[in-house]
Order: sequence, then C-alpha cells, then structure tokens
Amino acid sequence: MPEFRQNPITREWVIIATERARRPDQFVHKEKPKELPRRSPTCPFCLGNEHMTPPEVHRLSGPDGWDVRVVLNKYSALALEGEHWRRSEGLKRAAAGVGQHEVLIETPEHGMTTAQLPLPQVEKIIRTYKSRYFAVSEDPRIELITLFKNHGEGAGASLEHAHSQLIGTPIISPQIRSRMEEALRHFDELGECIFCRVLREELAEGTRIISQNQHFVSFVPYASLSPFATYIFPQRHMASFGESQDAEIRSLAWILRDMLARLYYGLENPDFNYTIRTAPCENRYCRYYHWYISLIPRLTKVAGFELGSGFFVNITLPEQNAEFLRNVKIPEPAEAAAQ
Amino acid sequence: MPEFRQNPITREWVIIATERARRPDQFVHKEKPKELPRRSPTCPFCLGNEHMTPPEVHRLSGPDGWDVRVVLNKYSALALEGEHWRRSEGLKRAAAGVGQHEVLIETPEHGMTTAQLPLPQVEKIIRTYKSRYFAVSEDPRIELITLFKNHGEGAGASLEHAHSQLIGTPIISPQIRSRMEEALRHFDELGECIFCRVLREELAEGTRIISQNQHFVSFVPYASLSPFATYIFPQRHMASFGESQDAEIRSLAWILRDMLARLYYGLENPDFNYTIRTAPCENRYCRYYHWYISLIPRLTKVAGFELGSGFFVNITLPEQNAEFLRNVKIPEPAEAAAQ
Repeated sequence: MPEFRQNPITREWVIIATERARRPDQFVHKEKPKELPRRSPTCPFCLGNEHMTPPEVHRLSGPDGWDVRVVLNKYSALALEGEHWRRSEGLKRAAAGVGQHEVLIETPEHGMTTAQLPLPQVEKIIRTYKSRYFAVSEDPRIELITLFKNHGEGAGASLEHAHSQLIGTPIISPQIRSRMEEALRHFDELGECIFCRVLREELAEGTRIISQNQHFVSFVPYASLSPFATYIFPQRHMASFGESQDAEIRSLAWILRDMLARLYYGLENPDFNYTIRTAPCENRYCRYYHWYISLIPRLTKVAGFELGSGFFVNITLPEQNAEFLRNVKIPEPAEAAAQ
Repeated sequence: MPEFRQNPITREWVIIATERARRPDQFVHKEKPKELPRRSPTCPFCLGNEHMTPPEVHRLSGPDGWDVRVVLNKYSALALEGEHWRRSEGLKRAAAGVGQHEVLIETPEHGMTTAQLPLPQVEKIIRTYKSRYFAVSEDPRIELITLFKNHGEGAGASLEHAHSQLIGTPIISPQIRSRMEEALRHFDELGECIFCRVLREELAEGTRIISQNQHFVSFVPYASLSPFATYIFPQRHMASFGESQDAEIRSLAWILRDMLARLYYGLENPDFNYTIRTAPCENRYCRYYHWYISLIPRLTKVAGFELGSGFFVNITLPEQNAEFLRNVKIPEPAEAAAQ
C-alpha cells in the first residue's frame, strides 16, 4: 500500500509509492554524458573571455590568472543600488527589488562539471561561497542569502560552464519564515534543535545514509519529495553557513563532491539543483535552526496535483535511493591516477 | 527597477522584472498546434476502447454511448481500500496512503482539446466535477479533494486525450492549512473574506482583468508568480466548489473555456495545469475561504533560487499578460459556424 510520509522540518507530506515504486536504475540516463571542450570561444565564463562578463567582484588567483571568479549577474533579478522601500495600497503589497545577484564561476575550464573537479578546487569554491556570504551579509538591506546551483537545462541552467549563484534579498519569504517558526516551536517544546534530532535518528537507523565524514552526513530524508533528493547536514549545530570553520569547509568540499560524483557516475549526469539553506541574517546565531544543503535531481515533473494541493508524489523508495547511491563506484580522478 | 510583489492570499513574494520584462508575444509557440486524429486505436480514453481502462465509476450518457466518463486511475497514487492509520516513531511520521484517484475523460474524441470543445460539452465536464466532488466527499476518510488538469508533456500529462483528475486525500497539506489560516486571520481582523476583497480591488482597478460574466471573473493576479498565471474567482462567496449552483456551472464552463481558448489561440497551445482550490471538506461552509481556479501555463522553469528560497521570479508584467490575453481573437467554433 502507498504510504504518506511527513518531513518534520517542513511539515510537507509526500505519497511514497511503496509497492509500484520504480527501481532506482530506471532513472539512469541512457546515454553517457557528452564530453565538453576544454575551452569555448563564446563562453563568457572561460579563461580569456573575462571581458564578456559584468564587473568582477571577487577572485581567487591561480596559476592561469584565477581559479574561481565572482561576477555580477548579467541578468540580475534585483537592482544593486537603491533604497529598500515597502508599499501597501489596499491588498497590493510591493517592495523595492533591490539586492545582490552574483555568479560564482567554479573553474576556468569549460569541460569540467563540479563532480569531476579536483578536491582542492571544490574547497576553493566553498571558501568563495563563504567569502561572498560575508561580503553580502554586510549590506544592511540584505535579510536572506540564498546560495544555489543550477546544473543542466532541465534545472534552469542557461550556460553549461560550471557555476553557482548567490542572491541576497531584503525580504524573507514565507517559506523560510514558516520553517524558522516550525524549528522554533520544536525547540520551545523540547529544548532541542529539530535538525540535530533528525540527524541523530537518521544515523541511528542508517538505512538512508549515503556518506559520512568527520563533519558532515549526506542522506536521503525519510520523506524525500522526489527521486534521489538528498540532504547534507553539518554534524555540529550551526544556524548559519557562515559559521563553518576551515576544517568543516574541507570536509564539506569532500562530501559535496562525493555526492555530486555519485549522481554523475551513478545516474549519468542528471540535471540537478542544490541550495544552501542558511538562517536569515538576523537569526545567524539561533539555537533552533541548523543550516544544510538540499540537493534535488530533476528527474520527474511537478504537475497539477502537486501545484494544487501541496502534496508530493515520490515514485521511488528513499531507502532504495540511498542504497543505490551508496553503491555507486566513483572512479579515481584522472589527475590523481596520473600521479 | 525590479519590484517585489506579495500575494495577500498566499503571502508569497515574486520578483517582477519590471524593466527587462519579456513581451508577452515572446512566449507564443513558433509552431501551430499539431492536428490530432479523431480516434486513436491505442488510446484507452477513446470511444470503443472502454475495456482498456480500470473500472468506470461514473458516466454521462451521450448519443455515441457516453459524453464524459470517469474511471479509476490506472496508476493511482493512493489505495482505494483500507483504514486511515497514522503512525509516529521518533520524528518519522507516516500515514496510510488511502484515498481516491480518478480520471475524468472529457470527451470521446481524441483530437479535441478542452478549448475547442463546444460549450455544452464543457458544461458536462464541470457538472461531472461536481458529481464526483460530492461522491468522493461522502467517504468519511477524505479530508481534501483536489480537482486538476495536466495538459501537455511539460505539465506532466502522459496521455494527450483530454482528461482531468480528482484526488481525495485523508490529510490536509501544510500548504492548504497555511492558506486557510491566513484567510482566517484576515477575516478575524477585518470581518471580510480576503478573496472577496481581492476580487473587488481587481475589478475596481481593471488592468489585470481578462474576462467577466455574470458569476465569474478571470484575471492575472497582481503578484502573479509566472507568465500568464491566471485566477478564476466566483463572484459569490462560496468556500466550496461543491456549492456552485446550476447557473454558476454554466457560467464557469463559459469562462473556463474562454480562458483556455485565449491560451490555445493566443499562445499556440501551451502546456498548462489548472486546479480547483476548494476548502477542505470540514470547512465547506466557512466564511473566510473562497474557492477558485488557479491556471498555470508551463512556460518557464523553476530553478535553484525558487526551490531554495521560496521566492519566485516573473520575467513578464502581469498587466501586460492580461492585456495580451484580453486581445486574443477566439475563432467561432466550427460547429457554430456551420450552423
């Protein structure tokens, strides 16, 4: 019989097709990922094409000029300059569309996905996330910082060169507010962070764990909304991603790359999004919220039922997803094998 | 400058690209809709293939046997039989996946989209929605009834023969609960239905109205989340779709078909979902909620920012969308012209 499962963090319900579930291997792409060229003359994110991007706001230098580069988004959702006004006229509520929208170019090489980059390069990406998190959070207009990555056309990426994005908004969305409230309610009742508790229960049960290292755990949540949707939780309680220490950043680089490699080699490079869900700036030290990464492969479509009811339907079993991902063989990186 | 707008009903914020907005006509499909055959020998929804569907639960008879047919869904998300249990084990919360999942076959003809059907046929579809709403709401396990339609592959439809679906769930999702709570809060503060107020303000302003008849109004909401997303509101306060009177059903058939024809002829048959958002069964007579239809053409993709922050980005202007849809020329139906 199908089963409803509830995510205790978001309170969202998903219908898990326990009997007629599709096997994880039915989601493997039929074709091997296509090889990309090392450089593309028309790609604004390639080495040598720096003049094709909007102004650079940050760079990590490297032997060829840069290893990671951060630029303003050419198609920014928000205006960089301007006051933050709010207006209310009857039920028409509006606010100034001010904020920061940046693109983080993850590598000078066109042909590499994040999963294939050497570990030290992924560390540089995460360190850049943290630098930009701090830089943007100093803007007094900014209330919430969303770091995310779109990979592949089906996930909304318009350029294939590996990149992430940061958007700082002067408003907190009701989705984030309601999650903060739920976490606060749990803390108020039981004196514990609900995320710390979820992590403890997942580790004790073990069936949905994918990888683990000193500071992080990746797992398929019990009430996973879609096939292979995965969480990465820091083991130490931290409300804000910005509080991560150096050792944690190294550890995060390892587990994120591990997770992306499992998708890349196990499912043949599916489209995906990931997002760092960190506390709003004003709650960065709170005891009840815990930052994490949510990674969503885009293998199925949201349709009328999900849009109209808020319920999700997952046609796979979270436990089988986790087992499949645990068993993926990740090849040694070429440069490591060559050494 | 871009502008944030907030939907007072859902409290969701959308960033409207007021300056670099794309013009509505940029969303028109390059190709004319393909012609479908009148019958398809392999389609389970075609006349003569009734043996290919799961059991029929309802039919409206017609000269060829039936005009509208309702069958159980072959790939039901929920089990029809069984007790509704709830279970809680640590933070693992689950419930029996019981409920009703039906498919409403809108016409015996394979080649017709809802927009092209004669008006009396669309009335029959809506009357069938109401019959099934009542039949399913008599099941004491059912708390929420979601009526919806997926049109086109990009909207999650797996069969091209025109059909809608009904899912009755034993649980109310947090999305629905939070909307009920917001509506109740507004009622509690101001003694009015927030939906009635939105409708009054939209009619007074007029710039986002598409169509209007005696009982219904279609409009692009002020904080529309995506291009051409549209609401259809009944003018009379009713919490539940099931309360619609005969005259209202005729009026609804007209405005729904009018709206679908504007999409079909104006944008060349885009993929879309619509959903009837009606109050949970236990709230069917409440004063603070108001049922409506939400219609969402699937012209853009949700990406990492939307998934990770709960904010939406609309690259069109609601006022321009409404103007474009108002100006669509709808051809006379062939059978009317022939008479």
